[in-house]
Amino acid sequence: MARIAYVNGRYVPPRDACVNIEDRGYQFADGVYEVCEIRAGAIVDFARHIARLHRSLGELRIAMPMAEQGLLIVMREVIRRNRVRDGLVYLQVTRGVAPRDHAFPVRPVPPSLVITAKSIDPQKGSALAQRGVKVITIPENRWPRVDIKSVSLLPNVLAKQQAREQGAAEAWYIDRGGFVTEGASSNAWIITKDNRVVTRSADSGILAGISRAVLINVLEALQLRFEERAFTATEARDASEAFITAATQIVMPVIALDGDPIGSGKPGPIAMRLREEFHRFAATA
Amino acid sequence: MARIAYVNGRYVPPRDACVNIEDRGYQFADGVYEVCEIRAGAIVDFARHIARLHRSLGELRIAMPMAEQGLLIVMREVIRRNRVRDGLVYLQVTRGVAPRDHAFPVRPVPPSLVITAKSIDPQKGSALAQRGVKVITIPENRWPRVDIKSVSLLPNVLAKQQAREQGAAEAWYIDRGGFVTEGASSNAWIITKDNRVVTRSADSGILAGISRAVLINVLEALQLRFEERAFTATEARDASEAFITAATQIVMPVIALDGDPIGSGKPGPIAMRLREEFHRFAATA
Repeated sequence: MARIAYVNGRYVPPRDACVNIEDRGYQFADGVYEVCEIRAGAIVDFARHIARLHRSLGELRIAMPMAEQGLLIVMREVIRRNRVRDGLVYLQVTRGVAPRDHAFPVRPVPPSLVITAKSIDPQKGSALAQRGVKVITIPENRWPRVDIKSVSLLPNVLAKQQAREQGAAEAWYIDRGGFVTEGASSNAWIITKDNRVVTRSADSGILAGISRAVLINVLEALQLRFEERAFTATEARDASEAFITAATQIVMPVIALDGDPIGSGKPGPIAMRLREEFHRFAATA
Repeated sequence: MARIAYVNGRYVPPRDACVNIEDRGYQFADGVYEVCEIRAGAIVDFARHIARLHRSLGELRIAMPMAEQGLLIVMREVIRRNRVRDGLVYLQVTRGVAPRDHAFPVRPVPPSLVITAKSIDPQKGSALAQRGVKVITIPENRWPRVDIKSVSLLPNVLAKQQAREQGAAEAWYIDRGGFVTEGASSNAWIITKDNRVVTRSADSGILAGISRAVLINVLEALQLRFEERAFTATEARDASEAFITAATQIVMPVIALDGDPIGSGKPGPIAMRLREEFHRFAATA
């Protein structure tokens, strides 16, 4: 497999895919990223991902590394060179390379841009969705600026590792009030026994997920009842269904929380339907 | 200036000083670091820094990249090749290079090791200490595991930038109880009007600073009154002196907090004395 990456202006093989040790992404986690699904060769929800990238960079006062249209061209070229039909494209922007100093470089440096793509067999995701995944809960311990999709992900790394060691695929953070915020790399959803689909408002404590936004459109189109509000872990345990959303997961049914089965303990029919309908509502570029 | 760095087994010039884009330090901030002062060609407090590195890595279950004696040899070689007599040596260890996935690599990979050194004119630090530095306060917003000296430093970057934009050199975090935890890259100290030297316990909310530990030895030797307890920003404003400690700062007098002068508004005599005495108590390697 070729695995050609775009790194700061060049398309390079893995051995040349490197960044300077004084890239602020490496020394300070001073950067942001996006992951887009690739489906049948097209980038899913490019415009929304780039809008979020723009917002994340703006919050950190990092310049866009190139215009949106340029990013689209490079992303497509990385996808093409890696012959990806179904998979992911990953994009990372950092503040750039500068002598180590916490505050921003006094003399501005160009931001760093890395784009990679890889194939993922869509059958794997479908097979996993048929089985569903387990989730654990952990106390929310991240900084408040989770609305910025930064690479400062060490808390998320530890959460995901803890989940794996407990036989789960995701960890849901629980805030001080006992409410679920989101997963370590996904948004969290439940479906109540009276068929209301519930997810936390993107106004506080979570990243505004792109798949989350698309799914709200799906719910509206299907005329399903939707409530944007916080829910507790207890409410999740009592739900008839639960699922997570992320570009890498689409809609993935959750069958257990901290070892307790949710609903029937099998993927729920509404979650599976939402998974099927999802791409009818996602844009492609 | 040569700026030779040690990167994963090789001594390289700046243009070759690079790490793979899939180094987990770059994509997840999944790594730790240490900064040691170099004084008259010797590494200050090497043993304590390496002990803390060992602890940070242990908390993240990252292997030591080489034995302590090997690290000392490489650090000395980087110092030698860069002809550093007074300055800093920086050491960063990450979990290594692996295909992107939040949880730890299933098949273990060797940790990445980067070591750099640079000269700093000691006169600059002395001159700055004669003037003192200003500090601002900001709400504590970091994750609880600040005891791990990780490169997940984006909150610290933003704090330092905010400080700079307000004409200050450091930001002190204030916890929910109104108490100072520590600075974005230093420990915080005050001296009360009755000459008690106060700093927060390393048990909660702060990194166990090496310079902090050395300074406690200095206080004991000089028979100064020392209290290890939390203090509020109000208490700091009413203090007769304040200062910060860090390997890059030694003991740096603080002359103002959020624009209010501390004590006389000039570097205090006890802080200056502690700065002078510091290296009598620091070990060198």
